[in-house]
Amino acid sequence: MSKIKVTRAIISVFDKTGIVEFAKELVNNGVEILSTGGSYTTLSEAGINCIKIEDFTGLKEFFGGRVKTLHPLVHGGILSKRDEEAKALNIKSIDLVVVNLYPFEKIVENGEKNIENLIEMIDIGGPTMLRSAAKNNKFTCPIPSAVYYDKIISEIKTGGISTETSFKMALETFKITSYYDSVINNILAQYTDSDKNIMSNEKITIPLRKNLDVRYGENPHQEGAYYSIPDFPENNLSEFFDKGKLNGKELSYNNINDISAVMRILADLDANSCVAVKHCNPCGAAQRTTTFESFKAAYEGDSMSIFGGIIGFKGIVGLDTAELLNGIFLEIIIASDFTPEALDLLTKKKNLRLLSYKKWEDKIFNEDTFEIKKVLGGVLIQEKNQSIPKNETYKVVTKKTPEQSEINDLKFAQTLVKHVKSNAIVIVKDNMLIGVGAGQMNRVTAAKIALDWAKEKAEGAVLGSDAYFPMDDTVKLAASRGIKAIAQPGGSIKDEDSIKACDELGLSMCFTGFRHFYH
Amino acid sequence: MSKIKVTRAIISVFDKTGIVEFAKELVNNGVEILSTGGSYTTLSEAGINCIKIEDFTGLKEFFGGRVKTLHPLVHGGILSKRDEEAKALNIKSIDLVVVNLYPFEKIVENGEKNIENLIEMIDIGGPTMLRSAAKNNKFTCPIPSAVYYDKIISEIKTGGISTETSFKMALETFKITSYYDSVINNILAQYTDSDKNIMSNEKITIPLRKNLDVRYGENPHQEGAYYSIPDFPENNLSEFFDKGKLNGKELSYNNINDISAVMRILADLDANSCVAVKHCNPCGAAQRTTTFESFKAAYEGDSMSIFGGIIGFKGIVGLDTAELLNGIFLEIIIASDFTPEALDLLTKKKNLRLLSYKKWEDKIFNEDTFEIKKVLGGVLIQEKNQSIPKNETYKVVTKKTPEQSEINDLKFAQTLVKHVKSNAIVIVKDNMLIGVGAGQMNRVTAAKIALDWAKEKAEGAVLGSDAYFPMDDTVKLAASRGIKAIAQPGGSIKDEDSIKACDELGLSMCFTGFRHFYH
Repeated sequence: MSKIKVTRAIISVFDKTGIVEFAKELVNNGVEILSTGGSYTTLSEAGINCIKIEDFTGLKEFFGGRVKTLHPLVHGGILSKRDEEAKALNIKSIDLVVVNLYPFEKIVENGEKNIENLIEMIDIGGPTMLRSAAKNNKFTCPIPSAVYYDKIISEIKTGGISTETSFKMALETFKITSYYDSVINNILAQYTDSDKNIMSNEKITIPLRKNLDVRYGENPHQEGAYYSIPDFPENNLSEFFDKGKLNGKELSYNNINDISAVMRILADLDANSCVAVKHCNPCGAAQRTTTFESFKAAYEGDSMSIFGGIIGFKGIVGLDTAELLNGIFLEIIIASDFTPEALDLLTKKKNLRLLSYKKWEDKIFNEDTFEIKKVLGGVLIQEKNQSIPKNETYKVVTKKTPEQSEINDLKFAQTLVKHVKSNAIVIVKDNMLIGVGAGQMNRVTAAKIALDWAKEKAEGAVLGSDAYFPMDDTVKLAASRGIKAIAQPGGSIKDEDSIKACDELGLSMCFTGFRHFYH
Repeated sequence: MSKIKVTRAIISVFDKTGIVEFAKELVNNGVEILSTGGSYTTLSEAGINCIKIEDFTGLKEFFGGRVKTLHPLVHGGILSKRDEEAKALNIKSIDLVVVNLYPFEKIVENGEKNIENLIEMIDIGGPTMLRSAAKNNKFTCPIPSAVYYDKIISEIKTGGISTETSFKMALETFKITSYYDSVINNILAQYTDSDKNIMSNEKITIPLRKNLDVRYGENPHQEGAYYSIPDFPENNLSEFFDKGKLNGKELSYNNINDISAVMRILADLDANSCVAVKHCNPCGAAQRTTTFESFKAAYEGDSMSIFGGIIGFKGIVGLDTAELLNGIFLEIIIASDFTPEALDLLTKKKNLRLLSYKKWEDKIFNEDTFEIKKVLGGVLIQEKNQSIPKNETYKVVTKKTPEQSEINDLKFAQTLVKHVKSNAIVIVKDNMLIGVGAGQMNRVTAAKIALDWAKEKAEGAVLGSDAYFPMDDTVKLAASRGIKAIAQPGGSIKDEDSIKACDELGLSMCFTGFRHFYH
């Protein structure tokens, strides 16, 4: 394995961490150091002998140093193939490019909003030197981060940097430069009114930063991680998982998935409502005038699945609710906030995860985002389902018109069914979820499961469906269990059969025009 | 709104599309053109007056042009703030940077494998000029693609480029440079043995290219698209959706999702098996010695849900199978291949989508990939679930030991349950799926649904579970329906209760040690 013998290095770093020690070691190993602006000052002040880049190029710095390294002698030195041409031109080779970039992402996170200041923090010379070295990694090694200093020194001490290491540094470089420009694009896009829809791009990258360590993925044998998309602090919802957690064990991969499901459902529900979630599906839900009443009703709707589940509230949890919650085994409770008394009681369970989303409420409930899913050979991307079922139009298609209370229940049913995995049917009575048929491969089985769940409570209840009825069997089954009103998108070629069955059996039915498949 | 008056442009393009016409228009509008290597030749030969970059910088090209534009006079001209300093230094401003990059991605797609040739195709000067202009977009407009030429000319004709347009071009630039480096990183990573696990990266971008237009996302009111991750042709599975389609309507978003589910299931099944999928869950499946027998058994297991579904074969579909398939309403049939007679028959249905995966078989069945899912504020990423249930260890924990035929059925059950949305229970008899309980919020309900589906066929069958039993109710229910053997991961604090129930009721049970949650 051939090695890169380092005789000359260029050092140009914004983050000065460890640079003095690193440069000293380089000098001790006979390396000549070229340096720029702030790096030169830092090194010189530490007594390290180095050459100013101006003295190397013979060009005085101008435009505040914007172009100091964009020079043929610098890039000739980095890109040199160490051949006859380089010798003939007397190009001095640069074997090591030690560069880290202006911290664009960091000032974004610190809340800098002034566009001029943001743009000033876009590094031009740094990425160029790193990319030049990465291209010529056979001869020149890029060092894009301080974390590699020790490794590099130890290799230099043994005679040079292995070409394998240099190649890995090249990979690391393209990772960093790609991420850097991806963040810049994502942030600057917020300063235009142009199309922010990710799918308007033929080619795109999404910048992802590991944000929260989780022990493993969906299962213990799968590694997993939570990545956030860098943004201004007020848009940074990933903070919620960290700073919003008031009590309990660390969050797992499945917890984050379930919490996200809860927040999406709460976004569509009214104030003071409550929802219970298991395996990303709602298993209990109710809308009442207080969180206490909503919880009681949600629990009444299903007191079995809730075991080991997650409960979310669109409002504040007080002591009365906390006392009830305290009697159940739960993994997670989420609320806008908890009263001090409620918190006192609930934090007695050391493992119980409590999250307050008050600080991020507006952003969470209005997150305009995309969905992404890995499929064969790539990913599917789509807009988030932004249709809010309670705002859809409920067109009565039957002779019978639903009562106002039934209309309310149908809207609640459709709100929930939107968030149940397809095929999905839900049964609702008095703004309370009493049956769910989730994830089924045919519609009538979904209905049967939901009705079996509701049992005798189905009498006088309403039924919501995430997609149309391919035939009239669901209507007939629903009628036989006492369902009084139905909501579904409509659109089947056999809609008339279902309408006719409703008319014959005395049910009302509304078409909403919006399908809510969700997988 | 202020405008950028263009007096000088630099043109350095690999893709010469439209460049002559564009440059002519620039000259007609009084713009001085600087140009490099191939672009200079193209423009000169077209009779367009332009200045060689060497004549502008006074530096003769060297290293085969690797550093020709990495020059202070070029970048000074691009980055100039058009202020007193620039005037004093006599820096000639460059107002327009017309650059497109070496086609790294394209040569990858064309199958270039030589690492030296790939590296040679990494552009250094081009991204640098574009990024300089993008940073200084207030004064200098980057034009990173030919698609903008017409718009730019029309703005120049009306007095200059709007700063709004220039800002949008800057955004476009960072999108392109980020994507470019992300592709380079992804491709070069294949030349090392270092950790390719995406989660080993703290910061990462994934390059995504829109690959197949779909009419809409999961629902008609959601826009959707299929993006692939650029790769060498033999790794490009996205091709399968396009070139693997032999007949039928265009694929929808949900089709691609379902097809991916089918292929994942087939990957874990034996040769000649058959699986039917609806809403990403298997609803029919069987393993027999021929695809014909497998299909008959899969259909016998469930002949209702299959309606409008998708059927996959791990093998070739012949005329006998095609004749049966022809009698059912299906959306999609996938097979390694179809015999000419089978194809003749099935292609009579113009809408029926037929896909052959033969060409991509090895890659599809060995795809080592990751999962990505949008959650609040970011994404969850995890390894794909690579544990193959038939290769797991089935540890008998009951007094009774399953027969060999039951062990085979348990392995088939666990293979399927891995791909059913959680909570999941499946019932299998004689290598044939006869009941599925999918996507449930509690385990015993999942079991009840699966057993209700199986009806009297459950007698003598086996049951597989994707996760442990929290209590003994599932065992008791299963026994009451005639189930003889059970497989589940084990690991509940109440495992002993379930074992005891099995022993009392005469069932055998195996622990596999592998949970298969899937949401």
